Amino acid sequence: MSEFLEILPLTKTSFAPYGEVIEADPSKMRLINNGTTERFHALGQPVVVGAPERLIFNIFRGQPRQFPYSVGMMERHPFGSQSFMPLSGKPFLVGVSDDEGGRPGKPKIFLARADQGVNYFANAWHHPLMALGAVSDFLVVDRDNTAANLEEFFFETPYSIAEPDL
Amino acid sequence: MSEFLEILPLTKTSFAPYGEVIEADPSKMRLINNGTTERFHALGQPVVVGAPERLIFNIFRGQPRQFPYSVGMMERHPFGSQSFMPLSGKPFLVGVSDDEGGRPGKPKIFLARADQGVNYFANAWHHPLMALGAVSDFLVVDRDNTAANLEEFFFETPYSIAEPDL
Repeated sequence: MSEFLEILPLTKTSFAPYGEVIEADPSKMRLINNGTTERFHALGQPVVVGAPERLIFNIFRGQPRQFPYSVGMMERHPFGSQSFMPLSGKPFLVGVSDDEGGRPGKPKIFLARADQGVNYFANAWHHPLMALGAVSDFLVVDRDNTAANLEEFFFETPYSIAEPDL
Repeated sequence: MSEFLEILPLTKTSFAPYGEVIEADPSKMRLINNGTTERFHALGQPVVVGAPERLIFNIFRGQPRQFPYSVGMMERHPFGSQSFMPLSGKPFLVGVSDDEGGRPGKPKIFLARADQGVNYFANAWHHPLMALGAVSDFLVVDRDNTAANLEEFFFETPYSIAEPDL
């Protein structure tokens, strides 16, 4: 029987080792456009490593996961950050691991609200997109993957995630 | 009486001189993540001009415009692209102008669907965010504006936009 992983709320502090949380943080608000727009400024930074590579916009359309969900694999992208911002008004799951000597440790699972996105740091272990409930679109900003920019690790014993309370 | 501007549908072709349309273009789809995700790849490119400036994620929370709306000003950012992706499931208006000897020409107004974003090219004249109907959030990727990166132009005679049919 595989171990069940706890589902944690996604916060800036808890997620700090792995990347940035993209959300309308009141402390970062400034009024612009003659007061018609609140700008929540510098919520994260897309980063690309290694010239002459470029950053690109993409949309990921994810199938919802079925539960209990088996976490068998983690991946990372050495040469650039990768951000996910939900466009369909649905929460989603975020899975990350600390690096333990070149392989991912036990995953941490976060429940991201529909108004929260994440930006994984370059080389942070993470699980592929986990949409919830319905097919969901995400705006993704990442490195145009012309050279190899993907490392995968398969767990000997998968972990499990029980259906989250939404 | 100021001239009313036509509202055009936002398409890749009509918008090409000013920037990129970010939408799930079927011709750019590839299956990833074991077939659980459709990736609409390379829908645009965030660009920053002039090292050591950086790109940042922001959320813009726009007040809805009232109609008839008066278009009195256009702006541009010489040193980087600026993208707007709607997060609130609402259409919005996009205003752009050709450059005519260093000043914006008569604006073109596009109606962007709730599933379309735009990425203005560096130095493309555009109107500030025009949300419709309700307060709306947008993910914005642009250059961190530590040096001057804003040029504004005020029309002698403003233009008008009538309330769009949604």
